Amino acid sequence: MNRSLILLDHDEYTLRLSRMQQAVASCADAAILSDKATLYWLTGRVFAGFAYVPADGTPLLGLRRCVQFESDGVTAERKIEDFARHVAAAMPAPGRLALEMDSSSYSAVARISAAFAAQWPDAETVNAGAALRAMRAVKTPQQIEMMRRSGLRQEAVYRRIPAIYTPGMTDYELQVEIERESRLEGCLGQFRTAGDEMELFMGNVLTGDNADTPSPYDFAMGGAGMDPSLPVGADGSVIRRGCTVMVDVNGNYTGYMTDMTRTYRLGDIPAEALRAHELSREICRRLAEMGTPGRPAREMYETALGMAREAGLEHRFMGHRQQAGFVGHGLGIEINEAPVIAPRSRDILAEGMCIALEPKFVIAGVGAVGIENTYVVRADGRPMECITNAPEEIIDLDK
Amino acid sequence: MNRSLILLDHDEYTLRLSRMQQAVASCADAAILSDKATLYWLTGRVFAGFAYVPADGTPLLGLRRCVQFESDGVTAERKIEDFARHVAAAMPAPGRLALEMDSSSYSAVARISAAFAAQWPDAETVNAGAALRAMRAVKTPQQIEMMRRSGLRQEAVYRRIPAIYTPGMTDYELQVEIERESRLEGCLGQFRTAGDEMELFMGNVLTGDNADTPSPYDFAMGGAGMDPSLPVGADGSVIRRGCTVMVDVNGNYTGYMTDMTRTYRLGDIPAEALRAHELSREICRRLAEMGTPGRPAREMYETALGMAREAGLEHRFMGHRQQAGFVGHGLGIEINEAPVIAPRSRDILAEGMCIALEPKFVIAGVGAVGIENTYVVRADGRPMECITNAPEEIIDLDK
Repeated sequence: MNRSLILLDHDEYTLRLSRMQQAVASCADAAILSDKATLYWLTGRVFAGFAYVPADGTPLLGLRRCVQFESDGVTAERKIEDFARHVAAAMPAPGRLALEMDSSSYSAVARISAAFAAQWPDAETVNAGAALRAMRAVKTPQQIEMMRRSGLRQEAVYRRIPAIYTPGMTDYELQVEIERESRLEGCLGQFRTAGDEMELFMGNVLTGDNADTPSPYDFAMGGAGMDPSLPVGADGSVIRRGCTVMVDVNGNYTGYMTDMTRTYRLGDIPAEALRAHELSREICRRLAEMGTPGRPAREMYETALGMAREAGLEHRFMGHRQQAGFVGHGLGIEINEAPVIAPRSRDILAEGMCIALEPKFVIAGVGAVGIENTYVVRADGRPMECITNAPEEIIDLDK
Repeated sequence: MNRSLILLDHDEYTLRLSRMQQAVASCADAAILSDKATLYWLTGRVFAGFAYVPADGTPLLGLRRCVQFESDGVTAERKIEDFARHVAAAMPAPGRLALEMDSSSYSAVARISAAFAAQWPDAETVNAGAALRAMRAVKTPQQIEMMRRSGLRQEAVYRRIPAIYTPGMTDYELQVEIERESRLEGCLGQFRTAGDEMELFMGNVLTGDNADTPSPYDFAMGGAGMDPSLPVGADGSVIRRGCTVMVDVNGNYTGYMTDMTRTYRLGDIPAEALRAHELSREICRRLAEMGTPGRPAREMYETALGMAREAGLEHRFMGHRQQAGFVGHGLGIEINEAPVIAPRSRDILAEGMCIALEPKFVIAGVGAVGIENTYVVRADGRPMECITNAPEEIIDLDK
């Protein structure tokens, strides 16, 4: 193991590598990693390059930049074709070679594939995506600790939100001040997502009816946004008396991010909004209790929807004009990891999974209500551990 | 043309569509667009879905979300397979079908390809990437106007930087306050890049020797960053007397972004640093004069490198420990569009191209110096028009 490139301690690297090799073995004889999130998962550092990970034995790493990290098993490589030549000289030919087909571009995968086909014409290429996604869904104790640390800092920022608000502010102005507070607390700002179904700058602050504006992205809530090139979130509405403000901002403080939403209000809001907010908290509690290893994710969604239905809030659940088709999602390095808590999900909960639950409601003329917390799935039948612990009540910004 | 989905006026849409159809015709009989940047280019709005653009005739658009925009020629489609069926029912079979293979994932392209192969088994698929990249390099007058508007607002923020600085600040703290100032000025924050060679939150503020820390990304300058999950930029160094601070922050105010860098100092800095900074300005002027239609981009790089060499600053040019292999780049919707001003570039300048020039130098013990401006290539032999006009001198933050 190379101590200058790899930032993990010996035990952690050994654990992660063995998990990765299990994942590789489930679909192939070796994998070539090219996605920055996967390389970071394996080494604790984002770098430009590739990793060749055999199902058995020692990986080889290739660096396209930052050649100061060159050392045993870590070579500087101008291009993938050179890396393929070096790998083929050192390793036996695999029967099946797994590539990151879900996260790298078609052209990039085709080039990697051709480079290795030139060395190993008989190797069959397969997609490593599903196996790596399942592997990343379960966090190691160190990764969970990094998420807990993100949660603590995100919580500290949320606790300051009532003091950040000043009368007359727009949703956008409040968001900018929360962004600054987050950054000063150490938020990295980067909002890593897998795939291209999501774009967001640093968070989503929604007030009044803007909460119900459909967005093109796969988020729980929408919002018109400030510009048609990024149509999501705050739209510059003044925060009005009788309306809520829902705050869902970036929790990436350590490379592993938490996800937390809290709702605020300006003055009194209708009883229906308060009731829906309490229902959101109740759904979170119930789902946290259900969230034990072996639980089908689908059942958690059904329970949440059933509770919304029982309260007569089904048509306000996860949006109104456009409803999101999930109530929670895995997260860690990226905001949309496995499992997904959705009606057709085939994911099964396992110890060490990190899951954000966000049962939200949109109340016409008022705005969005509800909370979101990040949880860790534990053993021994205990409920999921909540790692985002800012107060859950709707706080009046007027006080 | 659908007025609810498409936000461009009639003439602008007609112009863009005709340019796109020229690009499509150069490589295929029709193209399927799936990348958000390309869909935004064509319609003036980011949406979730697809566009089928024949080389001749009217495009068909498919919406995966925001179905309120449904209308003539714009259909709601749950999945690409449905869209393919609708397109095939309305359009003649193309001989060659171009897909966005450089920007969409392997899996996404494979799925699009299979969906259309089920309708049109004889159609050959090709890569639309190069043709669309060349198309997007040349901006329409309206797009140039959007870039000018970004430049004006970015300039306003830069003019306020000396007032933002307070003694004892770290590079990171200064960056956070510039971010806030930018956001309050209307900066969208989003930093769109093509491909996976770049990651950045909202900008790069470098002081002292951190400017020379190699980064894994394809930027002109590096920096260690605050965390190994995003190793670029400010590292929390206090801005020290005798050092420079280079500020290169996000200029995306309209969906079309400008790129501008300015250098500040705290107290006196060595003559070599001042000389290198003046050389950067001189290189910009010279290259702006050279930047006329028909000019090979490669020649501009050679001129810049020649000037650095003549001044004995070749080993400080575009970094020291790790040197970037370019001196400028096209930009617009994304920060790394064509052309690239680099030694092996085959790009040729054309009227309407927008190019950022950033001849920068790293001076040991001092930091980075130099400027960056965004320019528009004009007809009639005039020099490129500079659209980022904050003062270019090194401003002393101590004053």
